[in-house]
Amino acid sequence: MRIDLNCDLGEGFGVYGLGDDAALLQHVSSANIACGFHAGDPNIMRRTVRLALENQVAIGAHPGLPDLAGFGRRNMSVNATETRDLVLYQIGALEAFVRAEGGRLRHVKPHGALYNMAATQQELALAIAQAVAEFDQKLVLVGLAGSSLIEAGRAMGLSTAQEAFADRTYQSDGTLTSRRAAGAVLHDADAVVQQCLSIVQRGEVATVSGGTIPLRADTICVHGDTPGAAVLVATLRRELEQAGIEIRAGL
Amino acid sequence: MRIDLNCDLGEGFGVYGLGDDAALLQHVSSANIACGFHAGDPNIMRRTVRLALENQVAIGAHPGLPDLAGFGRRNMSVNATETRDLVLYQIGALEAFVRAEGGRLRHVKPHGALYNMAATQQELALAIAQAVAEFDQKLVLVGLAGSSLIEAGRAMGLSTAQEAFADRTYQSDGTLTSRRAAGAVLHDADAVVQQCLSIVQRGEVATVSGGTIPLRADTICVHGDTPGAAVLVATLRRELEQAGIEIRAGL
Amino acid sequence: MRIDLNCDLGEGFGVYGLGDDAALLQHVSSANIACGFHAGDPNIMRRTVRLALENQVAIGAHPGLPDLAGFGRRNMSVNATETRDLVLYQIGALEAFVRAEGGRLRHVKPHGALYNMAATQQELALAIAQAVAEFDQKLVLVGLAGSSLIEAGRAMGLSTAQEAFADRTYQSDGTLTSRRAAGAVLHDADAVVQQCLSIVQRGEVATVSGGTIPLRADTICVHGDTPGAAVLVATLRRELEQAGIEIRAGL
Amino acid sequence: MRIDLNCDLGEGFGVYGLGDDAALLQHVSSANIACGFHAGDPNIMRRTVRLALENQVAIGAHPGLPDLAGFGRRNMSVNATETRDLVLYQIGALEAFVRAEGGRLRHVKPHGALYNMAATQQELALAIAQAVAEFDQKLVLVGLAGSSLIEAGRAMGLSTAQEAFADRTYQSDGTLTSRRAAGAVLHDADAVVQQCLSIVQRGEVATVSGGTIPLRADTICVHGDTPGAAVLVATLRRELEQAGIEIRAGL
Repeated sequence: MRIDLNCDLGEGFGVYGLGDDAALLQHVSSANIACGFHAGDPNIMRRTVRLALENQVAIGAHPGLPDLAGFGRRNMSVNATETRDLVLYQIGALEAFVRAEGGRLRHVKPHGALYNMAATQQELALAIAQAVAEFDQKLVLVGLAGSSLIEAGRAMGLSTAQEAFADRTYQSDGTLTSRRAAGAVLHDADAVVQQCLSIVQRGEVATVSGGTIPLRADTICVHGDTPGAAVLVATLRRELEQAGIEIRAGL
Repeated sequence: MRIDLNCDLGEGFGVYGLGDDAALLQHVSSANIACGFHAGDPNIMRRTVRLALENQVAIGAHPGLPDLAGFGRRNMSVNATETRDLVLYQIGALEAFVRAEGGRLRHVKPHGALYNMAATQQELALAIAQAVAEFDQKLVLVGLAGSSLIEAGRAMGLSTAQEAFADRTYQSDGTLTSRRAAGAVLHDADAVVQQCLSIVQRGEVATVSGGTIPLRADTICVHGDTPGAAVLVATLRRELEQAGIEIRAGL
Repeated sequence: MRIDLNCDLGEGFGVYGLGDDAALLQHVSSANIACGFHAGDPNIMRRTVRLALENQVAIGAHPGLPDLAGFGRRNMSVNATETRDLVLYQIGALEAFVRAEGGRLRHVKPHGALYNMAATQQELALAIAQAVAEFDQKLVLVGLAGSSLIEAGRAMGLSTAQEAFADRTYQSDGTLTSRRAAGAVLHDADAVVQQCLSIVQRGEVATVSGGTIPLRADTICVHGDTPGAAVLVATLRRELEQAGIEIRAGL
Repeated sequence: MRIDLNCDLGEGFGVYGLGDDAALLQHVSSANIACGFHAGDPNIMRRTVRLALENQVAIGAHPGLPDLAGFGRRNMSVNATETRDLVLYQIGALEAFVRAEGGRLRHVKPHGALYNMAATQQELALAIAQAVAEFDQKLVLVGLAGSSLIEAGRAMGLSTAQEAFADRTYQSDGTLTSRRAAGAVLHDADAVVQQCLSIVQRGEVATVSGGTIPLRADTICVHGDTPGAAVLVATLRRELEQAGIEIRAGL
C-alpha cells in the first residue's frame, strides 16, 4: 500500500517568503512549484527546484492565473486559448530550472482558481491537458479526483493522478466544502491522519453530513502555508508509515 | 558569401500590437521573439513562433529585463544570479511554444538594456551565457560584435554570432552611436543597403567621423518597429541577393 | 436639447499606443482616462489629462481591473473590499495629474469587465459608488443606463449619468448585444448617427428584434480604438449639432 | 528637545506580509506607507492608513520604483519625466485612502533605490520635489540629511525633513555604509540607542573610521522588516523619552 504526498511550494515572490519549504520537503514525496504568475519568481523557482532534488522529491509545475495580487485564487474569465498558452508558458519556464539543476519534470498541477475552474469547466480542462500533452506526453496531470480535469487528461492520452486533500472536508457529492463555509478545513492533526488513512486504506472519506463516500486517490495534498504545517506533515507521514503505507511519488 | 538577417519580433502585449511581424517574417532569416518580460505574452509568443516556422525563419529567444513599462530599455541593477535565472526562465518559456509547434530553438539574443549591459559588463555577460549553456549547449548566443557577451559565450563553450546593425551608425571605437545623439539611425534605404554591403563584402563599416573600421558580423539586425520597416527590409534583402549574397540563418 | 459625448482615452501603455487621443479630444465633451490597471501609465495619464484640458473636455477617471494582459475585459471574482479600494486607488492616482495640470476631476466611469459586472452585481456596484463618494461627493458616477451601478450611485447620494452607446446594438430587454454575437456593433456612420438622434431626440432606441425601447441617456459613449474612430466621431458630432443638439459635458 | 521617529510600513503585497505594522505603529511618530509600485496594494494601503490614524501617527507617501520583484531596491535608469509622474501617481493613490479615512497626508519620502538615486542625482531629486510640490505645496519632503533631495525640496519651496538612520552606520563623508559592506547595520539595541542620542542631543554621529561628524536630523528612520524590530523600536523610544526627548512628528 502506498500513496504520494504532494505540497504547493516555492510560493514566495521577491523579498516575500511563504511557507517553510525546506522543512516541508523533508516529508512530502512530490512538490508543485509555483511558476511566476500567481507566485514564485525565477530565483525562487530555481532554489525550490534544487531543494526538491536534494530531498529526492518529485517535481511538478504549478501554473496559475496571471494574478499575483490575488495569489491566483480569483476566478478570471480566461478563454481556452489563453489558458492553454499561459499553462504552456509556465511549464516551459519551470522545466528550464529542473533541466539546469539536473532533474526531470514529472507532473503538472494547476493552482487555485485555475484548478477549481478546471475541475468543472470542460473546455478549460481540455486546454490545460492540451498544454501538458504538447509539452511532454509523459508528464502526469494532477487534478481533483473525479473532476473534468482528470477526464480531460485521459482524453489527451496523459497519465493522470487523482488528488484528495488531507485537511479539507468533503460534501456528500464529493466536492470540497467551500473555504468560505465553517468546517472547511481540518485543524486537528488526528483528524487529518484519520482522513488520510481512510482514503488510502479503505478508499473512502467521511463527509460533513456524517456519511462516507468512496474516494480513490493517487496523491494527497498537504498545505504548507499554515502555521505548524511542517510539523503536521511530519506527523502525518510518520503515522501513515507506521500503518504500513509507503510514501512515494510514483506519479 | 552569405549573411543572416535577424529581427526582434512578437513585441506586442495583450491588445497592443507592435510592428508588422507577418510582413517582416517574409524577409528575415532569424527571428528573436520576446518572452513576456519586456514585451510579448503567451498567446503572442505562440502566434509568432508559428508564423516564423511557416516562413522557415530560425527562432531565437529574446529575453529582456522585467520592465514592461519601459520596454526593457531602462538599465536596472540586476545582479548575476537574478540575471542568469530571469534569462533561463524566459528561454524555457519560449522553447515550450517552439516545441509545441514542432520547431527547434536555435539561438538566444538578449534585448535592449540587457543586451547593452551585457556588451560591457563581464559578470552579467557570463550570467547570460551560463543560462544559455544550462538550457542547451547547442544554442547560439547572439551579441554585439566584439562585446563581452561574445567573449562570455565562448568562455562557456557556446557557439556565438557577432551582430552588426543595418541602420545604426558606428563610432570609431566600434560602439554604436547612442540613440540620444543625432545621426544615430540611418533612415535612408540606400545608406542602409550600403552599410550592409560594406559589412558583408568587405568586413568593414563607415564611422560617423568619416573613417572606416573593421567589422566582422555573422548576423545583421534590422528593426521592425519603425514605420516602413517591412518595405525597407524587403529592399535590403533584394539588394543583398542581387549582389550575390545568400540570406540564410545558419546560426 | 443637449447631450454629452464621452470616450475612453489614454489607453496606451509604455511604448504601446492605442487610439488617436489628440483627434478624438477635438470632438468629444468628456474623456474617461485609464488609470494604470487595465491600461495607461503615469506619463500617458498626465499627457492625456493635459490634452483634455487643452480641448476643454471634462475629465473622468476610468478605473479597471488589475489585468493589463486582458485589457480589463476579463471578469475576475474580486470582492467588494478589493473593488472599493482598487477603484479608490485609481481615482486618487488620476486626480493627482488633473490637479497638477490645473484642472478638476468631474466623473468616474468603470472600465470593461468592471463596468459590466457593476451593471448587474449590486454589491460590486455599491463598492464602486462608495469609493467615488469617499473620494469626492461631488463626482458624477457614470454607468449603463438603468443598471445597478446607477442605483448604487443614487443610494450613495452621488449624481449619476446614465450612459448609452453610439455604436452598440440593444436587445429588447435594454441590455447590449454581446460582443461575441453577430451584429453587436454598428459600423455604418449613418446607423450610428440615427441611433444617437433617436436616443437624444425621442428617448428611445431600436432593438435587434426590430422594435424600439425607451432609453433615457445623459451621455453617449463613442469608441476610440477602432480604425476611423476619429472621423466617425467628428461626423456624429456635426450631425448632432446640425440637428440642433448641443454637445456639452455638464456631467 | 524632540525628534520624529519614522518607519516604512504597509510593505506587504496580496497574501504576503512584511513587518509587524500594528506593533511598530505604537512606537513611531511618522509612517511612510508603500504605494503599490515596490510594495503595497490598495487593501494594504487602506488598512495601514487606518492603523496609522488610530495610533495618531503622521502619514507620508513612500513612492518607489516600478519593481515589485526587486522591492524597489534596484537602481533603474528612469528619466526625470518618468520619475516625476510615477511619484505623483503614487502620492495621489495614497492620499485617496488618507482622505477616505478622514486623515491628512503630511509628507513624502521616496523608497529604496529611488531614495538613494535622489540623494546624489540632482535631476531626479528635482523631479521628485516637483511632483510633491505639484500635488500639495504644504507636504514635507523627507530625504537623506545633506542630500540633493533636500536641496531640491528647498529649491521647490517645500518644507524638508533631514533624515538620519538609527541602525545604519556612517562613513566619514556622511554617507551610509553600503549594505553590501560588513558593519553596515547596527544590530545591538544599545548601539542603536547611543547613535540616536548622539544625533539628537549633540548633533553628531560616530563614523566607522572611529571619528565623529556633525549630523543634524529632523527625523530618524527605524527599520520594521527585521526580526525583533518592534521590540527594538519600543526600547529606543523609551530610552529617548527617559533622556527627556519628546517623540513627535511635527514634520
